[in-house]
Amino acid sequence: MKSVDYIIKADYLLTMEGDLSVIRDGAVAVTGSVITDAGTFKDISLKYTSEKIFDGNNKVVFPGLINTHSHAAMVYFRGIADDLPLQAWLEQHIWPNEMKWLSSEFVADAVELACLEMLHAGVTTYSDMYFYQQAAGKKLEEIGMRGVLGSGIIDFPWRDVAQTPEDYFTNCEALIKEWKGHELVTPCVAPHATFTCSPDKYIRAKELADKYDVPMHTHLAETQYEVAECQKRFGKTPVEHLDSIGFLSERVSAAHCVWLTDREIEILAEKKVGVAHCIESNLKLASGIAPLPKMLKAGVRVALGTDGAASNNDLSILGEMSTTAKVHKGVSLDPTVVNSRTALLMATRNGAEILGLGDKTGSIKPGKKADIVIANLDKPHLTPLYDIYSHITYCMRACDVETVMVNGKIVVDKGRATTLDEAKVISRAKAWRDKIQAP
Amino acid sequence: MKSVDYIIKADYLLTMEGDLSVIRDGAVAVTGSVITDAGTFKDISLKYTSEKIFDGNNKVVFPGLINTHSHAAMVYFRGIADDLPLQAWLEQHIWPNEMKWLSSEFVADAVELACLEMLHAGVTTYSDMYFYQQAAGKKLEEIGMRGVLGSGIIDFPWRDVAQTPEDYFTNCEALIKEWKGHELVTPCVAPHATFTCSPDKYIRAKELADKYDVPMHTHLAETQYEVAECQKRFGKTPVEHLDSIGFLSERVSAAHCVWLTDREIEILAEKKVGVAHCIESNLKLASGIAPLPKMLKAGVRVALGTDGAASNNDLSILGEMSTTAKVHKGVSLDPTVVNSRTALLMATRNGAEILGLGDKTGSIKPGKKADIVIANLDKPHLTPLYDIYSHITYCMRACDVETVMVNGKIVVDKGRATTLDEAKVISRAKAWRDKIQAP
Repeated sequence: MKSVDYIIKADYLLTMEGDLSVIRDGAVAVTGSVITDAGTFKDISLKYTSEKIFDGNNKVVFPGLINTHSHAAMVYFRGIADDLPLQAWLEQHIWPNEMKWLSSEFVADAVELACLEMLHAGVTTYSDMYFYQQAAGKKLEEIGMRGVLGSGIIDFPWRDVAQTPEDYFTNCEALIKEWKGHELVTPCVAPHATFTCSPDKYIRAKELADKYDVPMHTHLAETQYEVAECQKRFGKTPVEHLDSIGFLSERVSAAHCVWLTDREIEILAEKKVGVAHCIESNLKLASGIAPLPKMLKAGVRVALGTDGAASNNDLSILGEMSTTAKVHKGVSLDPTVVNSRTALLMATRNGAEILGLGDKTGSIKPGKKADIVIANLDKPHLTPLYDIYSHITYCMRACDVETVMVNGKIVVDKGRATTLDEAKVISRAKAWRDKIQAP
Repeated sequence: MKSVDYIIKADYLLTMEGDLSVIRDGAVAVTGSVITDAGTFKDISLKYTSEKIFDGNNKVVFPGLINTHSHAAMVYFRGIADDLPLQAWLEQHIWPNEMKWLSSEFVADAVELACLEMLHAGVTTYSDMYFYQQAAGKKLEEIGMRGVLGSGIIDFPWRDVAQTPEDYFTNCEALIKEWKGHELVTPCVAPHATFTCSPDKYIRAKELADKYDVPMHTHLAETQYEVAECQKRFGKTPVEHLDSIGFLSERVSAAHCVWLTDREIEILAEKKVGVAHCIESNLKLASGIAPLPKMLKAGVRVALGTDGAASNNDLSILGEMSTTAKVHKGVSLDPTVVNSRTALLMATRNGAEILGLGDKTGSIKPGKKADIVIANLDKPHLTPLYDIYSHITYCMRACDVETVMVNGKIVVDKGRATTLDEAKVISRAKAWRDKIQAP
């Protein structure tokens, strides 16, 4: 009998490995930051003992959810401007506020709120594109959450982030040098989009990522405007354009991918590009609806993202799962597309894989890091239960998540964050709002 | 100073009357079952005293939500079969289970679970179409929830409900006689749909509803199949068909209305038919996406419904608001359609009005019944707050609802149901599931 740090029991255990079958009366053994074993409680209890055993009554245990596209610090602009045309939203509200308020301090404070919200929702890893990512990295280390922090690259100078475009590369390389190899934080190179980054920026971004073996993150084919601009400037659609300059590879996760030709879907599959499907943001900003069933059929690696909270307006991947599974049925008039198993797979293992973290997280597998969610099924809206995948996809809400472990450490314990002072995080956000709203 | 039963304070009070402006530091005075007054706390506190004052810190108060289309008892089949073609779902799963299990006892037990879920989600009134509605009425009376109970009418006999189709009318008239004039329960005549009800049934249903002055409820233009069948049998589209036989009026609430011609939208507006828009069910069953922006523009009276939990899979109107507001933006590529005020208006006052309950509920107005929701804003995912309507529509979840009053009585008190034994309701549902699932 080997002693382990935790044994997590579960009426229903979903490892998201193998054939995705449900383990009834399951258990996970955790030692340090690592998953030691997983299986039926009967088997686990014959091999391991622990002083800390989580009772699995009415509980489902599944891998931590992965948010593959966000701008976490924008949570401070949640709901500041809604139901507006995209350009008015950006030009009159989001950009002026970013121009006015963004700083290292803003990002540090806002990221705390975003992490608090995500952890409560069972999100254990998020992939981000923004500025001041050093500040975000420090917060993730303090909080104990996993993140892929993309340092933004654009063509024009921006506040004190970059006096010249060259500075974006300097910042990004500094971020990489500081965080490369860290247990929780993965630095990432993040050229913004085809309409804000010239081809030479994309090429240099790739060289930088290749040099240090780190992932890349970009926006791609989000709006019809972007496609038209790309055609005008480069005579190619966005995916073809980035492919023609040699940017695309499995190192890249591309957010949105809404407006794609069939040929572009083939390219994404061939080049093993990861796609962060952000259905709620795409709907709310009226960007359009990505051809997800076609992408899945073509073998494109697709995972889920929330985008920033200013355009969603929350950071819950459970919400994205439900919306994704429903919307594509309605749009394609085919109720069999994006079933509940596919939805949870996109939200977990696929997410980890497109971020290059497939060996670390995304499933409950011996040797992977212990990023684990325990959710409470003893709720009216989760009763009765015939199919656990269906309930997680179509009925479960963030508040059903009870306990969350990241890297073997309990960060949410029966609904309370253990590494964040919730009242302080909320009151700090209100203080920022008061400043932002002041006339 | 007049003494009232309750004073409900609110940092944010939304009456859903007048210009929908937000009352900061508001309060509602309640006496017996009725709203006595509403306004700023300053004004209310000068006029009224109460021994029971709800503290409004970090709270938003709004009218009870109205679910205008459901089959509440089907909650016992939640998630029993998902991601299937519609005919397989109906013919191999839903109908055989209904055939096998439905009874007065089943409905009584299942309706308790549905009401428990809806009350927790701030739904204070639901409109239903099913059988054994006497059993549902008794439950609503016990629980203290408002309901419009439609007794189903179809062309063919069905179990012990109806030996001959004539019995549906006998049942419905008995329901009307028993409940007409009841404080909480409104009986309703519910011919099922154009493909299951012959024109003579619709005409007799109308005669019955006119005779007793009660509302009517039907499914209408839900699927392309239904439109094709209607064309084949009657040479008309569904709305034109029902209009041609004189069925349509403001007494009718019509669920779905997905497949409509422009002419049919005009008819719905002219005849003041109420439409129960059920976006999540329509998406999940791949029925299609109703032309909501067009309907609103044409002046059709539209409210929101969940449909049964077997096709949604929950009974939360907050979820419908979010999905409705987002999906129509994405589909129309116009981010200004269905703004957050419209979403809450559809979920409250519009809902009451299409059910013929506009004088009783749907807004916080002196003289109306006290159907009121208090939600807690002190949550990470509701922080920061710039626009309360935006937060309710895009971020609020059922679990943020803290206290719910129906007809002046507290039915959910700080997250706990007061008139239902939650553990018993859940364990009873599990016992039914075990029977239903038994090999």
